Amino acid sequence: MERAEILGVGTELIYGETLDTNTAEIARALKPYALKVERTLRIVDEVGPLAEAVREAWGRARLLVLSGGLGPTPDDVTREAVALALGEPLELDEEVLSEIRALFQARGRPMPEANRKQALKIPSARWLKNPRGTAPGWWVRKEGKDLILLPGPPSEWRPMWAEVLPALGLPRRPYAERVFKTWGIGESEIVERLGELFVREEGLEVGTYPKAHGVEVVLRGEEARVAELAEKVKKKLLKEIWGEGELTLAEAVKRRLELEGATLATMESLTGGLLGAEITRVPGASRVYLGGVVSYSVGAKARFGVPEELLKKTVSAETAKAMAEAARGLFGATYALSTTGVAGPDPLEDEPVGTVYVALAGPKGTEARRYRFLGDRETVRLRAVYAALALFLT
Amino acid sequence: MERAEILGVGTELIYGETLDTNTAEIARALKPYALKVERTLRIVDEVGPLAEAVREAWGRARLLVLSGGLGPTPDDVTREAVALALGEPLELDEEVLSEIRALFQARGRPMPEANRKQALKIPSARWLKNPRGTAPGWWVRKEGKDLILLPGPPSEWRPMWAEVLPALGLPRRPYAERVFKTWGIGESEIVERLGELFVREEGLEVGTYPKAHGVEVVLRGEEARVAELAEKVKKKLLKEIWGEGELTLAEAVKRRLELEGATLATMESLTGGLLGAEITRVPGASRVYLGGVVSYSVGAKARFGVPEELLKKTVSAETAKAMAEAARGLFGATYALSTTGVAGPDPLEDEPVGTVYVALAGPKGTEARRYRFLGDRETVRLRAVYAALALFLT
Ligand SMILES: O=C(O)c1ccc[n+]([C@@H]2O[C@H](COP(=O)([O-])O)[C@@H](O)[C@H]2O)c1
Ligand SMILES: O=C(O)c1ccc[n+]([C@@H]2O[C@H](COP(=O)([O-])O)[C@@H](O)[C@H]2O)c1
Repeated sequence: MERAEILGVGTELIYGETLDTNTAEIARALKPYALKVERTLRIVDEVGPLAEAVREAWGRARLLVLSGGLGPTPDDVTREAVALALGEPLELDEEVLSEIRALFQARGRPMPEANRKQALKIPSARWLKNPRGTAPGWWVRKEGKDLILLPGPPSEWRPMWAEVLPALGLPRRPYAERVFKTWGIGESEIVERLGELFVREEGLEVGTYPKAHGVEVVLRGEEARVAELAEKVKKKLLKEIWGEGELTLAEAVKRRLELEGATLATMESLTGGLLGAEITRVPGASRVYLGGVVSYSVGAKARFGVPEELLKKTVSAETAKAMAEAARGLFGATYALSTTGVAGPDPLEDEPVGTVYVALAGPKGTEARRYRFLGDRETVRLRAVYAALALFLT
Repeated sequence: MERAEILGVGTELIYGETLDTNTAEIARALKPYALKVERTLRIVDEVGPLAEAVREAWGRARLLVLSGGLGPTPDDVTREAVALALGEPLELDEEVLSEIRALFQARGRPMPEANRKQALKIPSARWLKNPRGTAPGWWVRKEGKDLILLPGPPSEWRPMWAEVLPALGLPRRPYAERVFKTWGIGESEIVERLGELFVREEGLEVGTYPKAHGVEVVLRGEEARVAELAEKVKKKLLKEIWGEGELTLAEAVKRRLELEGATLATMESLTGGLLGAEITRVPGASRVYLGGVVSYSVGAKARFGVPEELLKKTVSAETAKAMAEAARGLFGATYALSTTGVAGPDPLEDEPVGTVYVALAGPKGTEARRYRFLGDRETVRLRAVYAALALFLT
């Protein structure tokens, strides 16, 4: 099989000051294609070593993808390095230059001279428009191969990559992947429950990945075999699966609310706003989500309707219920979710770190659940958010 | 300068199913030494490609570090690949084999045959004891170079690496690093402002890294030269620098409030709770943060004190100010922050995506600022959070 090579450009990637997730995301996007990704590289922003790496990779690859180093500063040298490696000159494109200038004008600022170089390209490159930033990318087709140059920020390169990848006309392979998302069951329980369905062989593979939103069960392999196995796995985990693929818990909740024509409010303590933030990450959230209260202090809880007698021990099922009911009334929502608990680092009210109560109030009454999560402060908070959302689904 | 090469072994690293943080951590540990890390590699667990990568890296490097692929399963092939690349045979060490067997016996289990291969090594390798697992590592010294083979799990390789690194006798260099965090100035403006202070030479290097919390300016190099340059850079960016090193904006705000003995409340719209979540990520947040309101709907804004006449055009400086003032009153806080704007994906009230107003209400009055951020929905929201916090600092 021909090879794809992926290079993440930036000294900060080597040292982990910026986490390199780009190369992995690009590698995953190539899975449906008959190209092998044997290695990914993180490389310094220095013309010499970068050009050397590009030359080596270009020699081996059918497709070479680079991300990063297209900014305006002196350490953004990817363009220069690729030009050098491919033995072509850099030429200024006046049209692109005026587009970049216009972007700055729209923000009421003159274009700094440093941004000029973002309008440079080599003759064999076509421009890839960047809908979200000043740095356009390149698509080079040469010697029957493709080289793609993308900026570093995911919000910028993702739309560019989504457009160019199908246009490359790469050979496909009958590869399929199914991701089942669960809540309320652990990895080893899943392995036991699946028994001999937990296949790991050439052409068909099951994997489990624990995430804050629950364990993901991933099936990979030949299309027909994956489809057949997926039906069996689904039956075994019927109660625990809340979604598939890219769907998030907040999206699943939003769909459910839209179907019902219902609305939602929140009252959060230990999560401090993270639950509302997760709900409103979904475009169109305002169609179902009215708003929330962050009752981080005892005073705030009292102010927004938690009864006096509960305020001495706020980490409890009763408080969680009272909070959800108060939020439901306050916003006039169909449903309301609440969170209270101990994110740490220290125990609170004699409860250990990780103790969390979540509640859901709705037309048919109020339900609370208790959890004891492992992990640091941020992990506990994130799991509390998903635990609250999961009240809707399982 | 001589080179160090670092290889992370494992197909799961390439696809990000396991995040490769090992190579970055190893690279950081090498910073005090006079070795250059120009690239790090993630590579599949397959003998052919892995042996090829080892051969190439060994040719270039003074030091080669590999982590991963020392387990007992069929896809753990790092030992085989290194033996192949260095042209040496693998030999069974009976003593190490009985040590591994003893480890299993201690846990009351017989050693699976698969673990036998963990006792294989090449003649020029010495063993590196693994205090936390069954897979010992290798230290190969050959041709005036060193090759270190470590297991993948951090809890296993960290103690092994901590022991072997000082024993290698690598040349040191007086290395230092300073990170300045700014708000309100772009990368190219920083380059212009710093002028010839934007040094990039052997032994002293300036880099800029745009983050949602503003551009970070990083100085790296020889200790004395970094210290001298840091003072000059600080003076040039006096107004824009809000912190140094690991400090987050929310931590800086919390410190400032604690010094003043002040408290804080929030009212958020487009950020949906993300501002409160960022504030409460900091341990001890409850000492200064009373709580907040997420006024995601017009009804919620009205309910919590935004005047009627502002509700027709909520994306405005006036609304942001009214929200901050309302939150301040509602929670009885010294200060209150607010956010309103358009996170996207579509324009709103004739305002383009990225339009954001943030406001701060305090004892001395209320101040609002307007921004036009680039990026997707989540980026705009995150930048709005930091813009609100930055009202305290710059
Ligand atoms: O700032 C506000 O008042 C406000 C409150 C709720 C939503 N928005 C914005 O309105 C748009 C639609 O919201 P949504 O959650 O339905 O996608 C989106 O750009 C949001 O950022 C803005
Ligand atoms: O759930 C609550 O009522 C609640 C409200 C505010 C804070 N807490 C928890 O109290 C502890 C101290 O909070 P903090 O923010 O001061 O570190 C920490 O474990 C928080 O998760 C909990």
